[in-house]
Amino acid sequence: MTYCVGMVLDRGLVFMSDTRTNAGVDNISTFRKMTSWEVPSDRVLTLMSAGNLATTQAVVSLLDERTKARELRDPSILGAPSMFQVARMVADTLREVIEEHAEGGQRADSTFHATLILGGQIAGSPPRMFMIYPEGNFIEAGKDTPFFQIGETKYGRPILVRAYEPDMSFEDAVKLLLVSFDSTVKANLTVGLPFDYHLYEVDSFRLGRQGRIAADDPYYEAISRGWGDALRDALHSLPSFRL
Amino acid sequence: MTYCVGMVLDRGLVFMSDTRTNAGVDNISTFRKMTSWEVPSDRVLTLMSAGNLATTQAVVSLLDERTKARELRDPSILGAPSMFQVARMVADTLREVIEEHAEGGQRADSTFHATLILGGQIAGSPPRMFMIYPEGNFIEAGKDTPFFQIGETKYGRPILVRAYEPDMSFEDAVKLLLVSFDSTVKANLTVGLPFDYHLYEVDSFRLGRQGRIAADDPYYEAISRGWGDALRDALHSLPSFRL
Repeated sequence: MTYCVGMVLDRGLVFMSDTRTNAGVDNISTFRKMTSWEVPSDRVLTLMSAGNLATTQAVVSLLDERTKARELRDPSILGAPSMFQVARMVADTLREVIEEHAEGGQRADSTFHATLILGGQIAGSPPRMFMIYPEGNFIEAGKDTPFFQIGETKYGRPILVRAYEPDMSFEDAVKLLLVSFDSTVKANLTVGLPFDYHLYEVDSFRLGRQGRIAADDPYYEAISRGWGDALRDALHSLPSFRL
Repeated sequence: MTYCVGMVLDRGLVFMSDTRTNAGVDNISTFRKMTSWEVPSDRVLTLMSAGNLATTQAVVSLLDERTKARELRDPSILGAPSMFQVARMVADTLREVIEEHAEGGQRADSTFHATLILGGQIAGSPPRMFMIYPEGNFIEAGKDTPFFQIGETKYGRPILVRAYEPDMSFEDAVKLLLVSFDSTVKANLTVGLPFDYHLYEVDSFRLGRQGRIAADDPYYEAISRGWGDALRDALHSLPSFRL
């Protein structure tokens, strides 16, 4: 399993992903699930993935190779004229990779499935964010649904639904995401630290602040410890049930 | 889907269940999912169910019929000498009902599955609580795992994990459960109000306070509205992330 969240804020895009992968519960490893591309003053793209690791690594490698050879750049995600076109390329690549492996004799192609969150901005347009399904179709975040989750989404959802604000600061967004991730880690063994993040500032057309939060990070420890107390206080502040 | 929680407290047992059942998302109804039996000064039993409604109703009807005919009472849940024996009878009944329907031509017997929470107390022993699986086996709550959830368990779990205390009052337990249920209702259409509850006081050997909380219940509305603000305040009280 995996947990990734992408959020659209007034001031930019926020991405956070965990790093745990597992084949069964007795075979776990750490892999980065977030990849970014930058063409300074033209575009920034960030992709996060949940699902079969072989599939998602193949998708990223294919997309990446096409951006490196200059003669291949035209149909590449670094040449596409809009975020919608980029999403289509990523989605087509994902579907192709899944189909290729599913044809190799395995009947259950769901084994090779993956779901992606793609966000970024291309000069001339506002930032956009998409959730891409294994079938190769996708949906876009909007005012009504300003964030996407993939992987183990349920434990961490209630706090996002309640506390997300479009005008929140990057600092508050990271705090909110750490609480959401911490709730998930506490409940599901197949989601784990460290967490990667990327904070893209609108109209900067440069990679924003990126970082990795490890299990022994003092700020994460303070949030994880403090949240339990804060929740109990919050519950205490509500009116009592009268029998 | 469904959401039911059973909790073991120092002062007794707490049960809460939602009432929504659905066949698809376009066919929803309201059914009670909690049943209680009482033999004053001898025993109190409460059963909650998640899963196929025909299965769970058949289980309850079979158990109930056997308690009513005096000559059948001996192998009944009202005659069994221990909570463990009661759990075994309930589990056997559940497995029989599932097998009977699964043999009727349908191959996917998972269609008829159900999971149960059984709690109660028989004179001479402390209160006990069990989670009963469709396979007919079961586990018992203990100090490490003092509550069980069935149905849509994920959205409402983080707050239970953080705020449950074995010495909490019934009033606080109902408040905690309402927050957990509210988080679930907000995220999953197939869990819905009204909620039923039963608060069994240890060594009373009488049905405890029972009630139903409707969507327009003023206390529920206060909790549901207040929890969003309380969560935001809780988040605000945590230290800020520094970029």
